[in-house]
Amino acid sequence: MKIAMLTSGGDCPGLNAVIRAAVLRGDRTYEDEFVGFLDGWRGAIDDAVVPVPRRRVRGLARLGGTILGTSRANPFHDDGDGVALVRETMERHEIDAIIAIGGDGTLYTANRLATQGIPVVGVPKTVDNDLAATDYTFGFDTAVEIATESLDRLRMTGESHHRCMVAEVMGRSVGWIALHSGMASGAHVICIPEFPLSIDEICDYVQQTWDRKRAPLVVVAEGFTPRDAPPGFRDYELDEFGRPRLGGIAQTLAPIIEERVGIETRATVLGHIQRGGEPTGYDRVLATRFGMAAVDLVHRQGAGRMVALRGTAIVDVPLTEAIDNPKRVTRDRWDEAVTLFG
Amino acid sequence: MKIAMLTSGGDCPGLNAVIRAAVLRGDRTYEDEFVGFLDGWRGAIDDAVVPVPRRRVRGLARLGGTILGTSRANPFHDDGDGVALVRETMERHEIDAIIAIGGDGTLYTANRLATQGIPVVGVPKTVDNDLAATDYTFGFDTAVEIATESLDRLRMTGESHHRCMVAEVMGRSVGWIALHSGMASGAHVICIPEFPLSIDEICDYVQQTWDRKRAPLVVVAEGFTPRDAPPGFRDYELDEFGRPRLGGIAQTLAPIIEERVGIETRATVLGHIQRGGEPTGYDRVLATRFGMAAVDLVHRQGAGRMVALRGTAIVDVPLTEAIDNPKRVTRDRWDEAVTLFG
Amino acid sequence: MKIAMLTSGGDCPGLNAVIRAAVLRGDRTYEDEFVGFLDGWRGAIDDAVVPVPRRRVRGLARLGGTILGTSRANPFHDDGDGVALVRETMERHEIDAIIAIGGDGTLYTANRLATQGIPVVGVPKTVDNDLAATDYTFGFDTAVEIATESLDRLRMTGESHHRCMVAEVMGRSVGWIALHSGMASGAHVICIPEFPLSIDEICDYVQQTWDRKRAPLVVVAEGFTPRDAPPGFRDYELDEFGRPRLGGIAQTLAPIIEERVGIETRATVLGHIQRGGEPTGYDRVLATRFGMAAVDLVHRQGAGRMVALRGTAIVDVPLTEAIDNPKRVTRDRWDEAVTLFG
Amino acid sequence: MKIAMLTSGGDCPGLNAVIRAAVLRGDRTYEDEFVGFLDGWRGAIDDAVVPVPRRRVRGLARLGGTILGTSRANPFHDDGDGVALVRETMERHEIDAIIAIGGDGTLYTANRLATQGIPVVGVPKTVDNDLAATDYTFGFDTAVEIATESLDRLRMTGESHHRCMVAEVMGRSVGWIALHSGMASGAHVICIPEFPLSIDEICDYVQQTWDRKRAPLVVVAEGFTPRDAPPGFRDYELDEFGRPRLGGIAQTLAPIIEERVGIETRATVLGHIQRGGEPTGYDRVLATRFGMAAVDLVHRQGAGRMVALRGTAIVDVPLTEAIDNPKRVTRDRWDEAVTLFG
Repeated sequence: MKIAMLTSGGDCPGLNAVIRAAVLRGDRTYEDEFVGFLDGWRGAIDDAVVPVPRRRVRGLARLGGTILGTSRANPFHDDGDGVALVRETMERHEIDAIIAIGGDGTLYTANRLATQGIPVVGVPKTVDNDLAATDYTFGFDTAVEIATESLDRLRMTGESHHRCMVAEVMGRSVGWIALHSGMASGAHVICIPEFPLSIDEICDYVQQTWDRKRAPLVVVAEGFTPRDAPPGFRDYELDEFGRPRLGGIAQTLAPIIEERVGIETRATVLGHIQRGGEPTGYDRVLATRFGMAAVDLVHRQGAGRMVALRGTAIVDVPLTEAIDNPKRVTRDRWDEAVTLFG
Repeated sequence: MKIAMLTSGGDCPGLNAVIRAAVLRGDRTYEDEFVGFLDGWRGAIDDAVVPVPRRRVRGLARLGGTILGTSRANPFHDDGDGVALVRETMERHEIDAIIAIGGDGTLYTANRLATQGIPVVGVPKTVDNDLAATDYTFGFDTAVEIATESLDRLRMTGESHHRCMVAEVMGRSVGWIALHSGMASGAHVICIPEFPLSIDEICDYVQQTWDRKRAPLVVVAEGFTPRDAPPGFRDYELDEFGRPRLGGIAQTLAPIIEERVGIETRATVLGHIQRGGEPTGYDRVLATRFGMAAVDLVHRQGAGRMVALRGTAIVDVPLTEAIDNPKRVTRDRWDEAVTLFG
Repeated sequence: MKIAMLTSGGDCPGLNAVIRAAVLRGDRTYEDEFVGFLDGWRGAIDDAVVPVPRRRVRGLARLGGTILGTSRANPFHDDGDGVALVRETMERHEIDAIIAIGGDGTLYTANRLATQGIPVVGVPKTVDNDLAATDYTFGFDTAVEIATESLDRLRMTGESHHRCMVAEVMGRSVGWIALHSGMASGAHVICIPEFPLSIDEICDYVQQTWDRKRAPLVVVAEGFTPRDAPPGFRDYELDEFGRPRLGGIAQTLAPIIEERVGIETRATVLGHIQRGGEPTGYDRVLATRFGMAAVDLVHRQGAGRMVALRGTAIVDVPLTEAIDNPKRVTRDRWDEAVTLFG
Repeated sequence: MKIAMLTSGGDCPGLNAVIRAAVLRGDRTYEDEFVGFLDGWRGAIDDAVVPVPRRRVRGLARLGGTILGTSRANPFHDDGDGVALVRETMERHEIDAIIAIGGDGTLYTANRLATQGIPVVGVPKTVDNDLAATDYTFGFDTAVEIATESLDRLRMTGESHHRCMVAEVMGRSVGWIALHSGMASGAHVICIPEFPLSIDEICDYVQQTWDRKRAPLVVVAEGFTPRDAPPGFRDYELDEFGRPRLGGIAQTLAPIIEERVGIETRATVLGHIQRGGEPTGYDRVLATRFGMAAVDLVHRQGAGRMVALRGTAIVDVPLTEAIDNPKRVTRDRWDEAVTLFG
């Protein structure tokens, strides 16, 4: 078979490991041939197709980024003929199936294409860990590791200066990275969108920590808003062009804490360093297993399905499970974390 | 309640994170008091008991090693009165329950004590990932990460020198660390005890890799013996005192590969650096959750049981599940890996 | 002798290594006794003095932060009687000499005290590398290493997304961290205060990089202002309380580059993670040598002098050399860097 | 000009950064053209020459290993006509000058060629830091950093198990890596070839450490032999083929310490992981500056000379300075270290 791969949406450590494993599996087990669509669906629409022979994937297990590039292009956004263009690209190159590697948006698109008869299988990708269809995906572990190392450093600086440190980590709609990196680094408060603390509660935990002669470390998911935020609390975050500004919620919370608790307080935004760079061993193994399983799935006629992790096993599930099915931090994981606050 | 903790067996990143989380959970949720037995069961037998108040566990989430020390002492090895001594120590200090953190040997001892009426709960610990009772435990992820980073380095050196590199990683009876770190680093052959390759097969993979102009990287679990090893193949590994020598199987394989394939070949033994040092974020989170769950288990009258990971959930299972129930690399995980060889 | 140590000014990896080495040297070579002033000069003024026996410095070589705490207190800012209070504290504790570890401000204070007869020797500390009196100090290497790793990650993300990445690193008045981390990570433009590029020049380099199908990486020292900045260019950086805002120059440059060059552009501020955490091996060795040399200097009656690195040798120089003598990036180091731009 | 580069001798982090910087400097400043000799002098002798255009050096600043390969070939070992072959290769490709990147052997060869009229300039390379002609070279800092991280881990494991840990690091004839990594990790004894301790002295330091309730960490340079070693002490280290065995001196010392001091003792050999992998920021900057300076040196008609670091400046010196001029650990650096023992 001739299989096309694409990576779509935000960068995520492990994308190249998926690509490499798929090519090795297909080459050795099925004698498949591989190509890549450049920059996600854009390559499928615009006929930007490159061969991906086995020698091209050498050393890719550990390489961050994606050799295929990525974008947020979408065949259904192009006045309706995007799907026809994808079909034409496939015919022109005699492509038998597509492996789409991406998050919920990408998998939603993959599913729509599959229902229209285009043989697409999915590989889930989410740094934020917000897909309920799989226990974990690659990228999350790396992001947690980088965030944890950075929080370790901030905590030491806070202790030396007797300061409160507020650190903003990724997570627009879910708090998994904040929960895990905060728990790993011994944070004294963790603020996540799913269970929004009030400003009073945050300041109480900071005060308790301070009373024990410790320098408070507050970890905040970027999508967090305090329960008692007044209207317009986050409005400042858009600049005059309506684009999100750097330094959203951490920058807002820090002066509030400083004023209410009376401790010098500093904000840090970890930002893009969390999603770039080399994947951890965990993420490389998971991405490699996903890549191999995706090729097996193609050969099992798995159009409309995606690979997923359940416990320690790689399984496959309908793409629809990835859609409108966000994985939020659960009540018991939250209660577990709260025990460690203050 | 007054709860005693102990760490027993080999060092493992995350032990201190378990201790810290147990104390925080017990202190805040149940008003428990904590002590530690020093150096594993030895402290319980010899009445070496130290208080572990909350302020003692500050900053422990990231600290490698164990503040309680460890040893291989065992109350059942002391002419039979070890159990009575443990009982006396508990009475003297009014200890209500024990949290035993250790591998299969420790958990076996814990179970025997529990059947004799001593309230012990277990926390599984195994760098090697060889306990079937839990999906993973803390320490394994850190070991894989360190091994992977080291293999990345060896691979580059091998490429520069056009050499074959043979790297020995931990794993006396199971090959999990070799499997994961080998897969993560793109090794060309992985040798594990569960599915022993022959010397011919190893040399064939090395040759294939060489033929593609690549520098072969061979990862070997320390407990591996080739399928076709002649009698006495590993005898050299004991010195005159009957102790295992450094540099066992890698050192043996390297000259064999060099001679048969005709490529300059070098051996490296990663050794103890795999089990020391700071835990990864993954291991810190898992160890923290285990520590908290162990205290809950004590309060649920869980004597004779241990905490375990199933998927993403912390559950509890009988200690007997950890005994005589090693987790070996499965056939499908092995087949998956073999696809990537050569 | 009885020697007091203090750490003053911003946090810096290696402070604890200096403290440890001083104590070991003094204890073993001279039978000195050590105490610490808490939180810099504040401890000397307010009589906050703790003993620092040898067992207290165990394991400190690698520990980030400072066990003595730090602040920006200054005996000359306290209505004039601060010096008398320092003298009283010294007499009360029978302290023979002070080792002051800090940046130019601290060393200026140390020199003023020395001229008033208080026996103070200095250890230079500057993450920014802005002291001409010494080739390097501890902390700078760690900051460059952390910045370089972060820039590596940003660069990969930029490549995947075909974006320009703008990264802000430390350096209010000098560009050493930007110069070294930018050179190490292969940045396409480096913006430093000493040789300010114009906005046009920056955009030209970004454009050249883009034309070669690369994702531009721009590294900016926090204190950089473009040569052609209009009046008020950086005013936005103070909030209503007059405090510096997070995300100064990177956040300002990113939308300008995006608009002029027409490439999607993202800003990241590395912030405090650069100055916290464990020192690199380089910084630990340098800090250890400084700590030992400072004690030797005390015993050589070196009041008014400080230790310094020249080539590979530790020497001592007058404290006045550290004052009003900033080390700026030189013309030839800048020319060297410019060759690599675009 | 057309310039050929070669990398010769052992792998060393930063080789690729030299290559990249040379090409960028030559391309932009002088419009030079670059080629590479494959596998060191072998490529010059056998006419294995590849073009190295600017696009080939993309991303090389951080890549470990060497894209040109390396070997221990030598034009003067080939029955005398090697030099003629080098000359022919140069003429065939119209090569104007050679940049030879290597250790003392390579630089010795470079100098002999230069005296015979072949325009060669040198870039010093030594992981061991054993060249007196330069303060430091790239690779050493990375090796120290990797060794330090590994020693940190071993130390924690030793503490948990109440064991003595013996770690062997690189350094056949000089002890710089042992000195720096041992000092950085707080080792209790450091054994180097320049100032050989006796077995009694080593055991005394181990005993002192043990008496203070610490787990002794002994760092040994691979080339160390105790002052009082009996004849044949290290003979075991060659196998039946006369090749050096893995695990030389650490493996020998460990059981001796265990027997004499009566503490469980374990040996670890860090081996090749110290010289592979990504260079630190420090090494990347130094390698980049060397690469650029080497091209400038070519254009200044610098045949027979090499670049070197003096303090913070890049200078050039005769190649003869690198020959028969090893840089050994000095008495004062040794005395400094000894203060920290025990």
